[in-house]
Amino acid sequence: MKRYRVAFLGFGNVGRALARLLVAKSAELRDNYDIEWEITGVATRRMGWRASDDAFDPAKLLAGNDETASESGINEWLARAKPDVVFETTSLNPETGQPAIAYLKASLLHGAHTITANKAPIVYAYDELNEIAVARGKRFLFESTVLDSAPVFSLFRETLPAVKVRGFTGVFNSTTNVILETMEAGRSFAEGVKAAQELGVAETDPSHDVDGWDSIMKICAISRVILRMPLLPRDVRREGIRGLDAATLQGARAEGKPYKLLSRAIVNADGSVTPSVRPEQITFTDPLGGVRGTSLAVHFELDTIPGLTIISHRPNLQSTAYGLLADFINAVN
Amino acid sequence: MKRYRVAFLGFGNVGRALARLLVAKSAELRDNYDIEWEITGVATRRMGWRASDDAFDPAKLLAGNDETASESGINEWLARAKPDVVFETTSLNPETGQPAIAYLKASLLHGAHTITANKAPIVYAYDELNEIAVARGKRFLFESTVLDSAPVFSLFRETLPAVKVRGFTGVFNSTTNVILETMEAGRSFAEGVKAAQELGVAETDPSHDVDGWDSIMKICAISRVILRMPLLPRDVRREGIRGLDAATLQGARAEGKPYKLLSRAIVNADGSVTPSVRPEQITFTDPLGGVRGTSLAVHFELDTIPGLTIISHRPNLQSTAYGLLADFINAVN
Repeated sequence: MKRYRVAFLGFGNVGRALARLLVAKSAELRDNYDIEWEITGVATRRMGWRASDDAFDPAKLLAGNDETASESGINEWLARAKPDVVFETTSLNPETGQPAIAYLKASLLHGAHTITANKAPIVYAYDELNEIAVARGKRFLFESTVLDSAPVFSLFRETLPAVKVRGFTGVFNSTTNVILETMEAGRSFAEGVKAAQELGVAETDPSHDVDGWDSIMKICAISRVILRMPLLPRDVRREGIRGLDAATLQGARAEGKPYKLLSRAIVNADGSVTPSVRPEQITFTDPLGGVRGTSLAVHFELDTIPGLTIISHRPNLQSTAYGLLADFINAVN
Repeated sequence: MKRYRVAFLGFGNVGRALARLLVAKSAELRDNYDIEWEITGVATRRMGWRASDDAFDPAKLLAGNDETASESGINEWLARAKPDVVFETTSLNPETGQPAIAYLKASLLHGAHTITANKAPIVYAYDELNEIAVARGKRFLFESTVLDSAPVFSLFRETLPAVKVRGFTGVFNSTTNVILETMEAGRSFAEGVKAAQELGVAETDPSHDVDGWDSIMKICAISRVILRMPLLPRDVRREGIRGLDAATLQGARAEGKPYKLLSRAIVNADGSVTPSVRPEQITFTDPLGGVRGTSLAVHFELDTIPGLTIISHRPNLQSTAYGLLADFINAVN
């Protein structure tokens, strides 16, 4: 049995869902994986850099009434919390990945297994972060960044050795899925945004989703890690969903070929990648044709398997938290 | 770099596809996995128990003109071939799993990593075979038994720790899929069987597929390994597709709810499992609604992910062979 000191960088919806899941799965982790854990650090913009030699009480943390003093910055926080595992769930900066990249680097240099739900550090700094992890004998994992919790990176890392990826197509963004389906049903774009917000998938400003940036980040992350092909967001041909009106969407749906915002990467004969994000019509019998609502999916074409589709149906906050938990177990096992 | 002695128990379509794939992937295995291999044993009903101290020439083996003398039985064969890895692809005996179970046991007792494409030994003898493997520090793997090559067992073993499965639904049999779709298009059952045979998915006698036995074996294999719930074929409620006529199928299709032979296992509150195989109508927006032709799929309901679907599109012989190759790499890595 090993007792791991875990620390949370960011403690919003996802971090809190993870803390609840750790509590709920405590007995299973102990009995089946010889894993015990205690929380020794929590850092948020509001709370500051809280760390403790002893364990925090998860119930008090979740209730928001912990009174531990704040350290002055990430290095002091790491030195006090001495985490074996850091969970990073701070908010996304799609232009630079900062400050998350700096936090992840500090965490890895401290010698913690470092797990993130944040796409941007994968897009902008995967190689550097992974090299530090390897040099320290630690893991840098990020399963929940693409399909929330459905295995994508671990699928290729652990179960699909010696395959060549010829391309992939994704339905990577649930906000646009919900908006397009709302408009197909005869309602407005604004009502679609509202529906997506009520389902908890859209931000107050939905531009990042609607204009294709979220999808682009996921294409870049998969390309960099699985295809080993560094792509930056500016390399991806991009068209969001604002150009589609309700009549077009209703007609496409009636024709049995509704629009989805599809993310594609085609691996060319010379090894280069042609990536795009744009609305495309697909039939219900297409591998991704049945992906509706908040569900997310990716379809890979491989040299050894003509087509392999992974669909995560209606993932929720607990699913995202599970992606982080799975990384934790896989990192220490 | 390690050079593995590999031996083939059975050398029909799947075994030969694997030999070709090993040849095609030689450089990749050497460069990326430090794996070299040589074939030192091949056993088939027609050829007998051929084994050699030295390596066979794969080209000669595939051309069917190898002249190595035959040993007298499996133990003599193993003693001569001294395999590090045995690939078992003999024909299925759905009632008892023999003689494959005896072969697999001998292979594991000899100390070889043992990899099978055969469902029946999983259904009837998984626990015993796996115990021998664990005791010998070897692996007993069988990824290609359910979806040909798409990861199912390795998915749970390697990427989804600490999940509880609440149930699963599968489209596990491509022969029945092809027959039902042929009949939906207005042709006869016999024409459907012929279409499935021409696609290489149906046997001369399609009863094993048509009457649901193939699907049942897959339910039992998943239940035993992933749910840790031993189920035998007789425990599964079974209804094949012979009761469906063309008019019924065409009507269902026209209604947007075509029939598929669905395999289900529901995990009850008391931990017991309710398994069934029967034709059911599903809509195109069902997780498995888009699975057509020879594609295979499984949908899992998990405590941490509401729904996770894996679809293998139009798997071919090379895909099945890849399942065995992936097991080989995962066993020795």
